[in-house]
Amino acid sequence: MASCSPRLLSLASRAFSSSSFSQANGVSLVQGASRGIGLEFVKQLLEKNDKGHVVATCRNPNASTGLLHLKDRFDDRLQLFPLDLTVESSIEASALSIKETYGHLNLLINVSGIFSIPDVLQRETTLNNLEKSSLMLAYEVNAVGPILVIKHMWPLLKVGSAIGTERSPAVVASLSSRVASIGNNRLGDWHSYRSSKTALNQLSKTISLEFARKKDPIISILLHPGTVDTDLTKPFQKDIPKEKLLTKEYSVQKLLHIINNVKKHDNGKFFAWDGQEIPW
Amino acid sequence: MASCSPRLLSLASRAFSSSSFSQANGVSLVQGASRGIGLEFVKQLLEKNDKGHVVATCRNPNASTGLLHLKDRFDDRLQLFPLDLTVESSIEASALSIKETYGHLNLLINVSGIFSIPDVLQRETTLNNLEKSSLMLAYEVNAVGPILVIKHMWPLLKVGSAIGTERSPAVVASLSSRVASIGNNRLGDWHSYRSSKTALNQLSKTISLEFARKKDPIISILLHPGTVDTDLTKPFQKDIPKEKLLTKEYSVQKLLHIINNVKKHDNGKFFAWDGQEIPW
Ligand SMILES: NC(=O)c1ccc[n+]([C@@H]2O[C@H](COP(=O)([O-])OP(=O)(O)OC[C@H]3O[C@@H](n4cnc5c(N)ncnc54)[C@H](OP(=O)(O)O)[C@@H]3O)[C@@H](O)[C@H]2O)c1
Ligand SMILES: NC(=O)c1ccc[n+]([C@@H]2O[C@H](COP(=O)([O-])OP(=O)(O)OC[C@H]3O[C@@H](n4cnc5c(N)ncnc54)[C@H](OP(=O)(O)O)[C@@H]3O)[C@@H](O)[C@H]2O)c1
Repeated sequence: MASCSPRLLSLASRAFSSSSFSQANGVSLVQGASRGIGLEFVKQLLEKNDKGHVVATCRNPNASTGLLHLKDRFDDRLQLFPLDLTVESSIEASALSIKETYGHLNLLINVSGIFSIPDVLQRETTLNNLEKSSLMLAYEVNAVGPILVIKHMWPLLKVGSAIGTERSPAVVASLSSRVASIGNNRLGDWHSYRSSKTALNQLSKTISLEFARKKDPIISILLHPGTVDTDLTKPFQKDIPKEKLLTKEYSVQKLLHIINNVKKHDNGKFFAWDGQEIPW
Repeated sequence: MASCSPRLLSLASRAFSSSSFSQANGVSLVQGASRGIGLEFVKQLLEKNDKGHVVATCRNPNASTGLLHLKDRFDDRLQLFPLDLTVESSIEASALSIKETYGHLNLLINVSGIFSIPDVLQRETTLNNLEKSSLMLAYEVNAVGPILVIKHMWPLLKVGSAIGTERSPAVVASLSSRVASIGNNRLGDWHSYRSSKTALNQLSKTISLEFARKKDPIISILLHPGTVDTDLTKPFQKDIPKEKLLTKEYSVQKLLHIINNVKKHDNGKFFAWDGQEIPW
């Protein structure tokens, strides 16, 4: 479907020699791109270089006016595929579509996450209102889904960073949250969200060790975007001092800076938007 | 059903003044008591003092020869209730039975945990064999279940350690595992087990903060029992140096020592059997 030849671009990019990820060429997947931070990643990835290709997935691409608008602007460099983290077959189908369209992936950003959904997912303020259904759903979307995406994209990421070439390693960045830190937990509450993101941290660390063991040139990191003005924070923005609420533009700019400069020894680490490591 | 009067014993125990948990009297719940470490906890709690009452729960008490044997020996101090961590109504029913029989709880030990079950729960050795069903089941049993037990036993634990008396604080001890530590993770793999226990750690830390905030005299800790000779380790005991495999008798003796000496400032912490704190 792409009207230019990404394979040629990808071959050309082997001329680069760099230990850090370069998004100048190559194919990036933004998983969870319908709105908020994910949509902003797609926008900046497309705007900041005129050769990179972006695959944007979300549950229903046709319902995302933000994505449709970008598709109008960057038709030949943006692909939209449906992907629901709770439906593994949709993850596999996206992997197949990417394989057929590009044959490889250089960057995977797992953005999707759920925090509170009225009548479905509690934002708990006490153990008394902790519901099993909230715990299970948050885990399915925030921890299990992103790891299944990595599992199914893994072969494409390996090709995207073939050993023995001068190409940069592929990068996997998964959006976690500072509240996932057990060591930093001072306030308690938000049980479902917290524990699912903590599990995501452990899963991300676990797979980073396998990438290292197998000498796969893939760097996997976790990112905390800051407290960002999106739908996710709407329910409690009134409690956030104005200067502490980041715009999505600023947050994504900082996160892309981290992604673009990530080194092999960063594999498995957990960074905040300002580059500081967050304790487990 | 108890032939002596636990309420009288509980009143008598107020004469004790100690900042640490005393199991000399009082009521202990061992959740996951059918075999392995849980059964050994029940045995030692009953043998080591002749006044303490123990409630032992498991999925099917009548199928546990170990528990039935102890019931023969300690009929008046041991109650057996069915509790399946995946069935919340069975947790609520146990809480009600304990309320009706004793009116309070002084110690809750969450022991149950699953690691690998042939054809059901993978012991993953690569991301390639990670299954969604394994991740979800391990989370349900190892993280969600124990926290729901704490939720439903919370009112009984509060009564078991009423403020303003000279009674010791109640203790909640949940069996985690060293492999839950993200900071210590050097080997990778075992994704389902690891991430579920890491989530349990975060949930346990989270509720310990609420207990502290509300000045509930309850201390909640996490315990790693060592690598112990039980059904759980059978599949990989051949890979464990003999001197590193603890007997369940020794492990439980050490864990009870920690429980008996736990102080208020230990609330929220994660201890190995030898008393060392484990990093998150
Ligand atoms: N905003 C913050 O302050 C903040 C702070 C810390 C961490 N984070 C993390 O950053 C990430 C992005 O957050 P955000 O603020 O941009 O959130 P957001 O505006 O609420 O967007 C959430 C995204 O997740 C997607 N999603 C939800 N369920 C999904 C499913 N089953 N399958 C696939 N996608 C699904 C949503 O798609 P639909 O449009 O289909 O619902 C949407 O694209 C999340 O992982 C979040 O936890 C955010
Ligand atoms: N053994 C070790 O080396 C080791 C190391 C680190 C941590 N641990 C942890 O220590 C704890 C005890 O381990 P263990 O070695 O004694 O294990 P085990 O011998 O395999 O016993 C596991 C226990 O969990 C119960 N259980 C399983 N599913 C349950 C459910 N749905 N509802 C209620 N109970 C359920 C089992 O009951 P049934 O009889 O009904 O199946 C059994 O009593 C676990 O949490 C384990 O993760 C053990």
